[in-house]
Amino acid sequence: MTKLVSKITDRDVDFAKWYTDVVREADLVAYSSVKGSMIIRPYGYAIWENIQRILDAEFKKTGHENVQMPMFIPESLLNVEKEHVKGFAPEVAWVTHGGNDKLEERMCVRPTSEVLFCEHYKNIIKSYRDLPKLYNQWCTIVRWEKTTRPFLRSREILWQEGHTMHRTSEEAREETLRMLKIYENFQRNVLALPVLVGRKTEKEKFAGAEETYTLEAMMYDGVALQNGTSHYFGKHFAEAFGIRFLDEDNTLKVPYQTSWGVSTRMIGGIIMTHGDNHGLVLPPKIAPIKVVFIPISQDEEVLKVISQITENLPSDISYKIDQSDKSPGFKFAEAEVKGIPIRVEVGKRDLEKDEVTLVRRDTLEKESVKVADASDEILHLLEKIQQDMYDRALKRRDEMIFEGTDYEEMKKQMKEKTGFFKINWCGDVACEEKIKDETGYKSRCIIEDEKTTGKCIVCGKEATSRIYIGKQY
Amino acid sequence: MTKLVSKITDRDVDFAKWYTDVVREADLVAYSSVKGSMIIRPYGYAIWENIQRILDAEFKKTGHENVQMPMFIPESLLNVEKEHVKGFAPEVAWVTHGGNDKLEERMCVRPTSEVLFCEHYKNIIKSYRDLPKLYNQWCTIVRWEKTTRPFLRSREILWQEGHTMHRTSEEAREETLRMLKIYENFQRNVLALPVLVGRKTEKEKFAGAEETYTLEAMMYDGVALQNGTSHYFGKHFAEAFGIRFLDEDNTLKVPYQTSWGVSTRMIGGIIMTHGDNHGLVLPPKIAPIKVVFIPISQDEEVLKVISQITENLPSDISYKIDQSDKSPGFKFAEAEVKGIPIRVEVGKRDLEKDEVTLVRRDTLEKESVKVADASDEILHLLEKIQQDMYDRALKRRDEMIFEGTDYEEMKKQMKEKTGFFKINWCGDVACEEKIKDETGYKSRCIIEDEKTTGKCIVCGKEATSRIYIGKQY
Repeated sequence: MTKLVSKITDRDVDFAKWYTDVVREADLVAYSSVKGSMIIRPYGYAIWENIQRILDAEFKKTGHENVQMPMFIPESLLNVEKEHVKGFAPEVAWVTHGGNDKLEERMCVRPTSEVLFCEHYKNIIKSYRDLPKLYNQWCTIVRWEKTTRPFLRSREILWQEGHTMHRTSEEAREETLRMLKIYENFQRNVLALPVLVGRKTEKEKFAGAEETYTLEAMMYDGVALQNGTSHYFGKHFAEAFGIRFLDEDNTLKVPYQTSWGVSTRMIGGIIMTHGDNHGLVLPPKIAPIKVVFIPISQDEEVLKVISQITENLPSDISYKIDQSDKSPGFKFAEAEVKGIPIRVEVGKRDLEKDEVTLVRRDTLEKESVKVADASDEILHLLEKIQQDMYDRALKRRDEMIFEGTDYEEMKKQMKEKTGFFKINWCGDVACEEKIKDETGYKSRCIIEDEKTTGKCIVCGKEATSRIYIGKQY
Repeated sequence: MTKLVSKITDRDVDFAKWYTDVVREADLVAYSSVKGSMIIRPYGYAIWENIQRILDAEFKKTGHENVQMPMFIPESLLNVEKEHVKGFAPEVAWVTHGGNDKLEERMCVRPTSEVLFCEHYKNIIKSYRDLPKLYNQWCTIVRWEKTTRPFLRSREILWQEGHTMHRTSEEAREETLRMLKIYENFQRNVLALPVLVGRKTEKEKFAGAEETYTLEAMMYDGVALQNGTSHYFGKHFAEAFGIRFLDEDNTLKVPYQTSWGVSTRMIGGIIMTHGDNHGLVLPPKIAPIKVVFIPISQDEEVLKVISQITENLPSDISYKIDQSDKSPGFKFAEAEVKGIPIRVEVGKRDLEKDEVTLVRRDTLEKESVKVADASDEILHLLEKIQQDMYDRALKRRDEMIFEGTDYEEMKKQMKEKTGFFKINWCGDVACEEKIKDETGYKSRCIIEDEKTTGKCIVCGKEATSRIYIGKQY
């Protein structure tokens, strides 16, 4: 395999540089004079539109409605819930002036919207008949990060945030896990990302949450990416905001709350899980263009065959016919950099044998197929690519999960390899912090489907849970 | 017709109060502690989602791509184009701090994004092969208005802004008018709004534009609503930003630019054009729920008939079956307040005659139809309602267009009636300002399809154009 695009750094030489090369060369983002923010270009935004379309349909199917809250939060409103403000105040952007006038009270651009939803819920929830409230919002949030990277950590983040209120704690817990499951299925089946799913430790949970569940993806370089969270708040915020409803038994009660969100960060996850030295590799189900047809010559017969094939494709298979005046070689490279799942080369020599050439982006394998079979083979191949991409990512991810049994031994291992380490843990935040300080590994999530036996890897006390630890983006 | 919802003020008594009553009682918006911003509730947001879906498809059909620019604009970037900054600087929100740190340069939240697009275009347009660039953005903008009203004038506005670059002035002018036409067709055919379409005067055009075209709708109270604009910029911004491309003839040239936008303001236009004393009246093509079925009793037979009818409806006809435990009378009122185009009442007495009752929201007329004919009649009625709503709005609008021939006479007329006045005008801004100062009427647009003969209504000099003047929201 020759490297077609020389502008992309080898990912084994400098993974960080490889990443920024890919997002630039695949036309996903561009920079501007607005430090820490990015421009999402048409090709990148089309991926986000696909994400939105698929997830929004899932949200609506499960009874959720979209709303739009203000983008500003007055300082006093942010201050209502103490843990929450402590978590977010250091990283918000403050608006202090409107036109030429200083504001009486400064406002931040929302870093997340719990307090706005709570204030609204206090006004509209009066009776058990008003519950549940299942709201979602697609919007931009702002967190004033010091160091930023496209999609992974930026000052402006495009995301969705679900905020729901329930009559009982059971119902709210069910909702928390229902949305986590929707995220998990989406990331596995559509984005081909084999995510670990579990609960965060006390130290790592969301500011104000009772429980935080997370989806942890594993990148090519062995570093974890938190790719979505779902929170159970209990009555925490509802009490701080004085939200009460009259239940069927005629007593005033406090409702139970959840919130859940995923963002454009998932696009970073796709890039760093599937990409290679030729550029982006997109799973067919999320690719804005699933098939690109490249005529080797601008021949009438060639173009006729292409339209013969495209006519037989179902309408949801988006394709592009590249008739630009660039050379075929350039077009191949461009299709590869942009990660288009299948490239179809149509040339006169192949047509003499009544054949066209299909090239898989994920493996770069070529196959010749009869023109009459091409559209069926494209459909078949798209499914196969989707499945193969997941299987390969899963295999690679599993090879990056290590057992940590002895602390000193593990620290040595960590110098040789990066990934998730599974360890026994006593539940003490001191041990969690010691690991972080000494190795840079943070707890990613609690492993809930494995029995805990043995001693804490740090202090040697009886372990209460098994956790994954990892480095993180 | 009895007034079912007593919470709505009579629109002939206090139109402003009627408006805020309707947006509240129809659950379109709610208020929060964020002054000047509104919460768009699920029912209101569903209207916006329909607007987005239909317009976005039109934009894509005409070759436009969606992007996402930063939401902030550094002060120095806003300052690049002089007229533009003069127009917007007094009404922007300034971010001065990120977390605890004062920013080196303050940034405003975008009031519109011309300068951000120009900066990006400067980086990506190098050759005539890079043209045209046809970008659009769906986002929220901020303008620090002193007095605000839901949908009509608020500090945060949900909108779309198209920004395009072209090789020639002809092509850019064509684009300006193409998008204006898309807006016009959408507003007429989908929103049932009979808009006047024309060019703005020099005084009223967009800050930095060479030509601004506008869509002017007429509200029930005789006050105009500017419901969308399309601008031709010429080389104005491109020169200020130093954008150059190498043309086919090997010389460096400056490209020509357009921008165009519509916003949630259109929802205000729908309300104030079609609404009545019972609440909202939605044109079928934009209604989130087109048909509501109300079982008069929770009878098995009744529910069977309803599902028999709904099964025969095409999948794009959204409907709701109101099985809540409220009384039928309450459900009728709720369907009316929310402006659902057709209400289907299904009761046992009607079913004895094998009939159900259809009630049109726009006229409140009832008709009995055989169960077997119901779904066909619903489809037919939806089309008829859409057309009738437009025809009625057009008739009412035309009755509010007056000829102004003598200035003093017109000023007297303006005390008795409100609407558009058509006048001859010499083109002098002094005359335009005199009218505004003395009557409160501003020029809405130039009437381009009527021949100009006669004298300026203000100064008596030879007229150069005919214009509409009107009061405005």
